[in-house]
Amino acid sequence: MSNTKSTRPKRRFWGWGLESDELQPMEVAIVKGLMARLGLPAAGLPTPPHESEFVLPPPRIAAPAALADVFSSAPHDRLTHSYGKSFADSVRMWNRDVPNPPDWVAFPANEQAIADILDWASRENVAVLPYGGGSSVCGGVEPAVGDGYRATVSLDLERLNRVLEVDRVSRSARVEAGALGPELEAQIRPHGLTLRHFPQSFQFSTLGGWIVTRSGGHYATLGTHIDEFVQSVRMVCPSGVLETRRLPGSGAGPDPNRLVTGSEGILGVVTEAWMRLQDRPRFRASASVRFADLPAAVACVRSLSQSGLNPTNCRLLDAAEVAFAGVGDGRSPMLVLGFESADHGLRAWMDRALELVRDCGGQYDTAAVERSMQHAASDEEAEHRKGAAGQWRDAFIRMPYWRDPVVGAGGILDTFETAITWDRFESFYRGVIDEVAAVIRRATGRPGSVSCRFTHVYPDGPAPYFTYAAVGSDRADLASSLAAWREIKLACNDVVTRLGGTVTHHHAVGRDHRSGYERESSSLYRDALRAAKASLDPRGVLNPGVLIDPRDRAVGITGALEPGA
Amino acid sequence: MSNTKSTRPKRRFWGWGLESDELQPMEVAIVKGLMARLGLPAAGLPTPPHESEFVLPPPRIAAPAALADVFSSAPHDRLTHSYGKSFADSVRMWNRDVPNPPDWVAFPANEQAIADILDWASRENVAVLPYGGGSSVCGGVEPAVGDGYRATVSLDLERLNRVLEVDRVSRSARVEAGALGPELEAQIRPHGLTLRHFPQSFQFSTLGGWIVTRSGGHYATLGTHIDEFVQSVRMVCPSGVLETRRLPGSGAGPDPNRLVTGSEGILGVVTEAWMRLQDRPRFRASASVRFADLPAAVACVRSLSQSGLNPTNCRLLDAAEVAFAGVGDGRSPMLVLGFESADHGLRAWMDRALELVRDCGGQYDTAAVERSMQHAASDEEAEHRKGAAGQWRDAFIRMPYWRDPVVGAGGILDTFETAITWDRFESFYRGVIDEVAAVIRRATGRPGSVSCRFTHVYPDGPAPYFTYAAVGSDRADLASSLAAWREIKLACNDVVTRLGGTVTHHHAVGRDHRSGYERESSSLYRDALRAAKASLDPRGVLNPGVLIDPRDRAVGITGALEPGA
Repeated sequence: MSNTKSTRPKRRFWGWGLESDELQPMEVAIVKGLMARLGLPAAGLPTPPHESEFVLPPPRIAAPAALADVFSSAPHDRLTHSYGKSFADSVRMWNRDVPNPPDWVAFPANEQAIADILDWASRENVAVLPYGGGSSVCGGVEPAVGDGYRATVSLDLERLNRVLEVDRVSRSARVEAGALGPELEAQIRPHGLTLRHFPQSFQFSTLGGWIVTRSGGHYATLGTHIDEFVQSVRMVCPSGVLETRRLPGSGAGPDPNRLVTGSEGILGVVTEAWMRLQDRPRFRASASVRFADLPAAVACVRSLSQSGLNPTNCRLLDAAEVAFAGVGDGRSPMLVLGFESADHGLRAWMDRALELVRDCGGQYDTAAVERSMQHAASDEEAEHRKGAAGQWRDAFIRMPYWRDPVVGAGGILDTFETAITWDRFESFYRGVIDEVAAVIRRATGRPGSVSCRFTHVYPDGPAPYFTYAAVGSDRADLASSLAAWREIKLACNDVVTRLGGTVTHHHAVGRDHRSGYERESSSLYRDALRAAKASLDPRGVLNPGVLIDPRDRAVGITGALEPGA
Repeated sequence: MSNTKSTRPKRRFWGWGLESDELQPMEVAIVKGLMARLGLPAAGLPTPPHESEFVLPPPRIAAPAALADVFSSAPHDRLTHSYGKSFADSVRMWNRDVPNPPDWVAFPANEQAIADILDWASRENVAVLPYGGGSSVCGGVEPAVGDGYRATVSLDLERLNRVLEVDRVSRSARVEAGALGPELEAQIRPHGLTLRHFPQSFQFSTLGGWIVTRSGGHYATLGTHIDEFVQSVRMVCPSGVLETRRLPGSGAGPDPNRLVTGSEGILGVVTEAWMRLQDRPRFRASASVRFADLPAAVACVRSLSQSGLNPTNCRLLDAAEVAFAGVGDGRSPMLVLGFESADHGLRAWMDRALELVRDCGGQYDTAAVERSMQHAASDEEAEHRKGAAGQWRDAFIRMPYWRDPVVGAGGILDTFETAITWDRFESFYRGVIDEVAAVIRRATGRPGSVSCRFTHVYPDGPAPYFTYAAVGSDRADLASSLAAWREIKLACNDVVTRLGGTVTHHHAVGRDHRSGYERESSSLYRDALRAAKASLDPRGVLNPGVLIDPRDRAVGITGALEPGA
């Protein structure tokens, strides 16, 4: 009973990564530098929580006998499934604060077991929280469901992680929803194919999680969200199985795939999907471009986004973000521009893109661009040539590891992302930066830093991604950090949606973005969605409190006002 | 009372086009040639119906007093709004058969009037049929709603036809839903912008109609459907106004725009939308390519669709289609390949595309390709150079005009379109052609012709568009034509969905595709959609019988089993 039923390498229940992961010495220096910049004591890193420091209440309900094999109440399983990976999740773990662990964690091995669990839960009034990789940063997997349910079960899809079919001709694969990024890629690589969906969470997030949260991936243009790559999907609901047809396109009624993408586990449990794949890229071209100021850089990105060249990468970092990421001198904005193709060389594409860059006063290293277009003879050579873009990418993947100790020491590091049309970008950007800086001062009594990059761009506007850093408390009083974060988070939701943006471009709504979601979305639409949910999940057992609430309770935010409070 | 309240040029109530339209002498020859090929007597063209041949029953309900100004019971208005423009609609008009005209046609001038009409209709149990340009080819605008309603009102959006705002920076415009294609383009052209959405119905279909039917447009790849160009939308529902937010992208919940696109008037009346626009193209490149056989042509199109070159035009005609369209000798398939851009020359794109073409044995005229890449000094020069692609396009726009007299003389000309993944295409194509040819022989006692082209292509499969021609009766017994068509139509729905395709790629479901829609879609999804409808249209007055039926009646098909029967 007390052994984990997960068969994967043991993850840290309290933070990012595996138990066996370690910071490299250079990374320890980066973390200490960050702590020093924030004014936190950086002599040593804080001591992470240990399982033995948590006393979990026993499950409030017995596991169903027929499913006992797949139900676990092992402390490590329950702790791992208590939170996602948001700042609020991290700080509560550092604070040894886990009031709502799931009563059980279920590891079903097939669809029938999932259907049985949903039947049982619907009968017994047990809330079910679908769980992929658990990398939610908006309270999307947390069993904080209030008193309206007898118990909670976190439904972990890890055993459904196979690629079941590959159709080389149509470049598609049928993949089980619980496959982590690396598991998925490893199984389709022998076919010469790739999904090329690389969210920051790639190692610890799953296909099913990507689909239900409308994950944002590798491509800066065209296929920005996973939505575009879903050919068909299967979702087990309390009412039965909703399966869409494998089609390259259709015009028959409102697109059923688009009801599933973004449904955040409230309508059903996605079990598998046919995904549209890519050939592995053979040609690349990239450039790092400096601009005198942000307006020039933004004008350039806008012209690129409207050029029809559709760069694979078009990542603009403002000067503060350049400084924060440590990839430049921090005085000027930087654009990382890249093209890739499995089919053709990219000189014409890059040549025209660089004309647009020069028209806006952008400066770049011509020789570096030329080198980027040569085929790398080996992976090592590619590594040598990666330049600022590659450095940035390495840092991007490791950032979540660096955050954990800073949070444990009293820092507040968080991000929020949005999208806005070009006509409103300038005032939006200024307004967000100013208001978030102000709320940080108000909530913490000290200035913080706020920076911005574009993760994705569209012909009609960018998707700005903001990062802020602040100190929640001097003495690692983590409850103060959490309280300050809540105030900042609600202010971010407010300013972003008040100035015309969306509360989330690709992190989903979960619990933490609901205050913004209720502002930006039509109440009639939420009513229609609630009606659809009542049809698919009549007892309202799936992920209560996330996105919309079937039982009409107050909007919560992680660790504060719980649904039902 | 008896004068039309439409302020547009008078359309033919019985067929395609305006009352003032005429066939050119060359077109008369084309029509007669077509009739001769079908074995129909082609001495003269049949005499179109005249308004005086129809005796319409008086409206079954009084118009609401406060809205009397916008309600019309003029015979021309009621006749025009009795049918769409499908074969079944045309043949019934030639047969002077209009049993279910709308009791009233309403021409509201603003949203408030629409809301008032929906309130009144919900109170009085009157069915409301939203009407854009009336070009539905699947029974989407017909007031055949059975006995469950007191009366029917066709709600024509023609007075909402303005472009309200243009945002040049984000290349977007806010457009009222009733704008016809040419009205929309004329209002945004002064800003140097274009929507470039050119369905065959362009002249006689509206933005709102495109949105709710997921219309397929100009672009063979990427933005194949209007869906991709909807930035935000406003829909007046019996429950209130559902408005989505103007955003370039979002990840907040299931995309609300995608509930509206494809909703076919059953959820609400779309009144306006912010649309994503394009700069007007300045660069073009095109090629007409011949292949030895269809497998070679299909392999080529597949490689083009997966190349990342994203051609604007990639229209493959099988040999029978080439013959039918009169653009070649009819012995080999033809690919019309084109690129366009407002930003850059297209030599690199076309060069690589032609490499792929040559790899598959395609043959083309190099000089013609070169000419296509030169800037045309004038529209006249462009006209001279249009070549086979341009000829085909001219014919494409005029085809609906040619169909009318052939139908009146006893011919059956119809099309159906679908999509299928590449791995299944070959057997699908063969199966569809064979089965449709067989049902034509069964239903009419004579062989017909069946041909196919691709209208749009995706990396994972094409959207094949089938055209067939048959003779329904010798003696212009049009009731026999309609009966034969019904049998053929149901067989087409059946074979297309049985072999794995979708019942419609861009013509919508309406009434006529429901037998296929119910096969291809999940019943759970239709339940969820029905629940959403009940939330937005609680009394079920909007477009009953289309897509799904709120009152759970049998699936109908135009002119046969009516809903409620």
